[in-house]
Amino acid sequence: MAVIRRLPKYHRYLGELLEKDVTRISSYELSKLTGFTASQIRQDFNNFGGFGQQGYGYNVEDLYNQLGNILGLGKKYNTIIIGAGNLGQAIANYKSFDDKGFRMLALFEKNPKLVGLTIRDIDILDIDSIESFSKENKIDIAVITTPKSQAQDVVNRVVNCGVKAIWNFAPIDLKVPEDVVVENVQLSESLLTIAFLLKEKEENV
Amino acid sequence: MAVIRRLPKYHRYLGELLEKDVTRISSYELSKLTGFTASQIRQDFNNFGGFGQQGYGYNVEDLYNQLGNILGLGKKYNTIIIGAGNLGQAIANYKSFDDKGFRMLALFEKNPKLVGLTIRDIDILDIDSIESFSKENKIDIAVITTPKSQAQDVVNRVVNCGVKAIWNFAPIDLKVPEDVVVENVQLSESLLTIAFLLKEKEENV
Repeated sequence: MAVIRRLPKYHRYLGELLEKDVTRISSYELSKLTGFTASQIRQDFNNFGGFGQQGYGYNVEDLYNQLGNILGLGKKYNTIIIGAGNLGQAIANYKSFDDKGFRMLALFEKNPKLVGLTIRDIDILDIDSIESFSKENKIDIAVITTPKSQAQDVVNRVVNCGVKAIWNFAPIDLKVPEDVVVENVQLSESLLTIAFLLKEKEENV
Repeated sequence: MAVIRRLPKYHRYLGELLEKDVTRISSYELSKLTGFTASQIRQDFNNFGGFGQQGYGYNVEDLYNQLGNILGLGKKYNTIIIGAGNLGQAIANYKSFDDKGFRMLALFEKNPKLVGLTIRDIDILDIDSIESFSKENKIDIAVITTPKSQAQDVVNRVVNCGVKAIWNFAPIDLKVPEDVVVENVQLSESLLTIAFLLKEKEENV
């Protein structure tokens, strides 16, 4: 797993340690917690300036905050959700995303039955107002929870509006300019992985 | 990325090729499609019996079906969803999961306002009926869409009922016996990855 995948995990574990008022931790203890090797952990942190102290380990709060900075937290990201079905609504309902700086400004939806409703004070707007909304609000991230058939089209539209990151839940590979970040969440593939692992276990019994 | 992560992708791409009535494809073409190297692709398929033919490439339908078998598709998996909030409802609404053999039998929920409702003909049952329901239906997979605070407890309960696979959406690392498969979908970590990549880009501008 790449370091970029480990950093958010470190951050989550350190957050949990903070909640438990743990003030310091060694790479060995972090290893037991995260499942990554202690040397891997030290190497990861060294890459980002090595905050550990010989014989002391890591100060949990310092490390948590420094990782947060590395992860670009503390910043605010204007975020819109395109597709206000259950999944879009579920994401809009994650207050913890707002807490992390991902400000959910609006949902956009084609279905007139949903347009005009609000999810946790977040308006569901007509999908045709994406362009005008983007003119008034600089959008950093667009979450794509539309059906597969509409995903590329809405992505083209938000990219034209200057959106620089796409969080894609549609089961397709989106085509975007090089300077646009795409993070895919492929639920079907995740579920197929379970089937594969179950089958492997049965065969090895 | 491990082969187990690539297989579902191959399967998805081949399914799309089938929809477009493509009958044969070379590892080179698959490489352009998937982004994996042609040698990686050939190696992956060889590991599973190498279905390619020199100078012909791969028969799309055969490969699709063989990958489906390798992935444990064609089988039926009795699946329950624990936590009938938006995310649980969203997953219950994915008809494509049923089509892949993941039979969504029921949702289980603590909130009495939701118990008794149905999502796409799938009943939302009281969470206290998990044990009795499991006695009547052999459950293969439990999808965990409860709040973090309840996740480990409900996992313990379904594991006691003989569930052998957990699809976990709660932001915690579940403790399960060795013979239980856990596939995590950590949405917060995925979102943090976007923040990190956005920050990287800004700094490299």
